[in-house]
Amino acid sequence: MYYIGIDLGGTNVHAGVVNEKGELLGQAEVSTPRGTEAVVEAIAQAGELSAQRAGISLRDVRSVGLASAGSIDPAEGMVLHAWNLGLDHVPLARMVSERMELPTLIENDANAAALGEFVAGAGRGYRSLAAVTLGTGVGCGAVLDGKLFTGFNYAGMEAGHMVIHRGGRSCTCGRRGCWEAYASATGLIRSVREAMAGHGDSALWHFAPTPEAVNGKTVFYAVETGDPTAREVLDGYLGDLACGIVNLINILQPEVLCIGGGISRQGEKLLAPLREVLDREEFTRDSPRRTRLCVARLRGEAGIIGAALVPEYR
Amino acid sequence: MYYIGIDLGGTNVHAGVVNEKGELLGQAEVSTPRGTEAVVEAIAQAGELSAQRAGISLRDVRSVGLASAGSIDPAEGMVLHAWNLGLDHVPLARMVSERMELPTLIENDANAAALGEFVAGAGRGYRSLAAVTLGTGVGCGAVLDGKLFTGFNYAGMEAGHMVIHRGGRSCTCGRRGCWEAYASATGLIRSVREAMAGHGDSALWHFAPTPEAVNGKTVFYAVETGDPTAREVLDGYLGDLACGIVNLINILQPEVLCIGGGISRQGEKLLAPLREVLDREEFTRDSPRRTRLCVARLRGEAGIIGAALVPEYR
Repeated sequence: MYYIGIDLGGTNVHAGVVNEKGELLGQAEVSTPRGTEAVVEAIAQAGELSAQRAGISLRDVRSVGLASAGSIDPAEGMVLHAWNLGLDHVPLARMVSERMELPTLIENDANAAALGEFVAGAGRGYRSLAAVTLGTGVGCGAVLDGKLFTGFNYAGMEAGHMVIHRGGRSCTCGRRGCWEAYASATGLIRSVREAMAGHGDSALWHFAPTPEAVNGKTVFYAVETGDPTAREVLDGYLGDLACGIVNLINILQPEVLCIGGGISRQGEKLLAPLREVLDREEFTRDSPRRTRLCVARLRGEAGIIGAALVPEYR
Repeated sequence: MYYIGIDLGGTNVHAGVVNEKGELLGQAEVSTPRGTEAVVEAIAQAGELSAQRAGISLRDVRSVGLASAGSIDPAEGMVLHAWNLGLDHVPLARMVSERMELPTLIENDANAAALGEFVAGAGRGYRSLAAVTLGTGVGCGAVLDGKLFTGFNYAGMEAGHMVIHRGGRSCTCGRRGCWEAYASATGLIRSVREAMAGHGDSALWHFAPTPEAVNGKTVFYAVETGDPTAREVLDGYLGDLACGIVNLINILQPEVLCIGGGISRQGEKLLAPLREVLDREEFTRDSPRRTRLCVARLRGEAGIIGAALVPEYR
């Protein structure tokens, strides 16, 4: 039996056909139009094209799973707000279901990515996993005891909105000091820019001639030159990132915690200093059975695979 | 079928017989001796006495569940360290099982209390609950989707050791700025003492003539007199408590979150200001389905009932 997964992004609609093992058998991508009807049509076309490329008929597809950013209501199959797509209170699951004549559901993109990693990536062979994706925000999702965990109202695992610095930076969610405001790529870029403003002599300026040119890699490059300002920014960043990870481990104790997003491509440059903090601060640091920290294995496919398989893991 | 639950405390061994609905049919309490053999014997005697008082035979008991503070390993049935009981790496579950000739397991006391509240207290009729107990520390436990949640290694839900003030107060766990260091009764008492040291004119001195006399109620009494120092301490305390609660809700989205421990007897004086923060800061504040905040319904019995029923909810 096959499943279609759709990653609904602001730029592209990415579709894939997946079997029950999470193997991706065919993919297709179309650019994301604006407006409800056009989005539904683009999803259907990408889904159909991915089935065609997988060499299967839609009759052999059990369901369609949509992964969407923005504010969604998985219980009702609604996209509440996805301003970048021009969607406002749209019953997207029902509309796609009618257009494609297949059962359709919708899930938060961070949860879908976590499920994808669990089935076909860093969590393969384990019973639980938490996935942390460092991007515009800090996206989090978890599979606990073999089931996608979303809380009673499908709104759980917003661990990016866990305050670690009470009274600190304003967050998009309305709180102050959220993990996301520090540990996201956006948070890191902000910290680099603040440091550059105070240190005209820093090597950071060499890698980003203007504040607008700063990206998630800038500080990693500058640290290689021995620049003390860059070192300080990176240490602060890693400390904040580690703080939230230890918090999450102390609460959830997942078998695996994987880190995804562009910054995770730093690999051991990121993981080694994080492990040092974990070895010092984790509640279970003396236990033989501790959470395994690693980088995510999948990239864009995690969302597709996870979205496709949500019906089997809810 | 019946279950025996044992709450192993530093002062008393409290035993109870429970049916599958969590109804307490008989109880017994003996004082806690020191030393392994004596503790095992006290547990057996309290258990047998509770069965006698419930009017049942030990042959009708399915299992014994022990709830213990300290560092335990539920997977191995071990008490790793419980210094106040003189226990150090003791296979307590096996020893009690041999003595009582009944299957025996051990669980963290905060997890047992959460399960007790779920079955027979604030969580009755719901599918998920998080319990936060404000005492010497901040004890946390959760039942998610009808099962006791403990993480893959039985060490989860140590939400008291979630940092909310990075770089703040030292915590017993080795980290700085843990929720427990602020939101526990101990944390509140420390804050009151610090405020008294700086404000010789505060009404706090009226309710606690010496710093040693401060307890969890002192600040609540002093606030009633309009004392501004007490007001400031209490506002800070409630802010820290609320911060961790919102963090937990954003992550777990339990159907119910109940607060227990001595401070919870303040009832609405505690809950009303917390709800204000939740209404302002929760990620789901605009959603129709939000976590219900309340005080715990059970007191000492929560641990007994929960410990007894762990085998049915693991």
